[in-house]
Amino acid sequence: MRRTAALILIGNEILSGRTRDDNIQFLATRLGELGIPLREIRVIPDVRETIILTVTELRAKFDEVFTTGGIGPTHDDITAPCVAEAFGVPWEFHPATYDMLKAQFGEDFNTARQRMAKLPRGATPIPNPVSRAPGFSIGNVHVMAGVPRIMRAMFDELAPSLTPGSPVQSRTWYTTNLFEGTIADGLEAIQNTYPQLDLGSYPFHRDDGRRGVALVAKGQDQDALTQAAQAIYTLLKEKGGAPVEGEPPP
Amino acid sequence: MRRTAALILIGNEILSGRTRDDNIQFLATRLGELGIPLREIRVIPDVRETIILTVTELRAKFDEVFTTGGIGPTHDDITAPCVAEAFGVPWEFHPATYDMLKAQFGEDFNTARQRMAKLPRGATPIPNPVSRAPGFSIGNVHVMAGVPRIMRAMFDELAPSLTPGSPVQSRTWYTTNLFEGTIADGLEAIQNTYPQLDLGSYPFHRDDGRRGVALVAKGQDQDALTQAAQAIYTLLKEKGGAPVEGEPPP
Repeated sequence: MRRTAALILIGNEILSGRTRDDNIQFLATRLGELGIPLREIRVIPDVRETIILTVTELRAKFDEVFTTGGIGPTHDDITAPCVAEAFGVPWEFHPATYDMLKAQFGEDFNTARQRMAKLPRGATPIPNPVSRAPGFSIGNVHVMAGVPRIMRAMFDELAPSLTPGSPVQSRTWYTTNLFEGTIADGLEAIQNTYPQLDLGSYPFHRDDGRRGVALVAKGQDQDALTQAAQAIYTLLKEKGGAPVEGEPPP
Repeated sequence: MRRTAALILIGNEILSGRTRDDNIQFLATRLGELGIPLREIRVIPDVRETIILTVTELRAKFDEVFTTGGIGPTHDDITAPCVAEAFGVPWEFHPATYDMLKAQFGEDFNTARQRMAKLPRGATPIPNPVSRAPGFSIGNVHVMAGVPRIMRAMFDELAPSLTPGSPVQSRTWYTTNLFEGTIADGLEAIQNTYPQLDLGSYPFHRDDGRRGVALVAKGQDQDALTQAAQAIYTLLKEKGGAPVEGEPPP
């Protein structure tokens, strides 16, 4: 079964360059393993209209939509009310979450922290084993924290409830003594033979001068993958390369 | 002057988790310094319709659009013809680029490599001091390589030709012994006093157990920034923190 996912990173810290993203690769890898490969990623600021429009557009286009960021207690944490608005439901106290956070914070359970006890009506909390305040799922939209440690813990809680597709598998060969332009025509011929696979060519160029290209075949058809991997090996040999299976060393 | 930018990363390697992005933070930082802050980022696969629609949408919404990826010699390098189609112009040999690449590759200037000598009609090449095959600008769209080393070299070539805005400046305080929820109300009050600034609260939680929050004020109004930074310092002190100026240590 082919399933698709999109990811929305919400907040200004990636856009401003303050923070280097540390969530995309984790989610891309895990979703590929689950057979729900990422097909689009958007990074958007914490602007109400932008969040609502983006969630509305992507949840109609993809099977599952994941968001990270904007669910803390501060004024710029507006993901939850915006997702509620995208679904046309109220954003209201979730009693079990309210009770849990009240017990955790005691006298410090102020107005700002109480915001973290509000979910869109009908949402299911995603437990947060790190710092308690939950994410949530509503329909096909899964709202998680932006802090990588917390996001990963939430995703581990969420993953068993996702409907998996056929896992995406891949085979990679690299060689250091060939360039893309030499093997491009041959690679295109292999791609045309196996249209159900996704063949990619990734040149690398290290600071110490090592250069070469990695060829990756990826897909959900195991037999085609085995045949394409053999064809890639043969192509690299024919062109004078020394193919090595796997990713090139960093 | 307020100017805005969007970034489109084209290709499957980020979406599949194969590659960790190494371009966003560089471009976000440099564009902020130029006063053309990034307002949206999209990561999309090398699918023709998706590229054309995304370029068309974003070049109408933002002052400048930057793309990375998909300009090599292989079958999945389709950025240039898609951008041509988005602008309604032919994708054709650019004589100076053709001559340069022919001189470089000699007998190896095969069909695949000749694709790198084609630009949308009317485009201006962006020189590539690393591996020669150029990027290009057409209208407000700037097409660069995906390999970080090459992208950075192209951006350095391109930057002097961009119309700058007022540089975005920022002041950051962090403290290790306070949490977001304690200072959220106070921070919202400061945000309301300086609506022309963008105030953010970024909790951190290191693997070794260090936790705390960084407060960032960002904007193009230097006087407001100075006053907001003082107000943030006062807030953190009042709440019992030990504010330190700058980013928290990694």
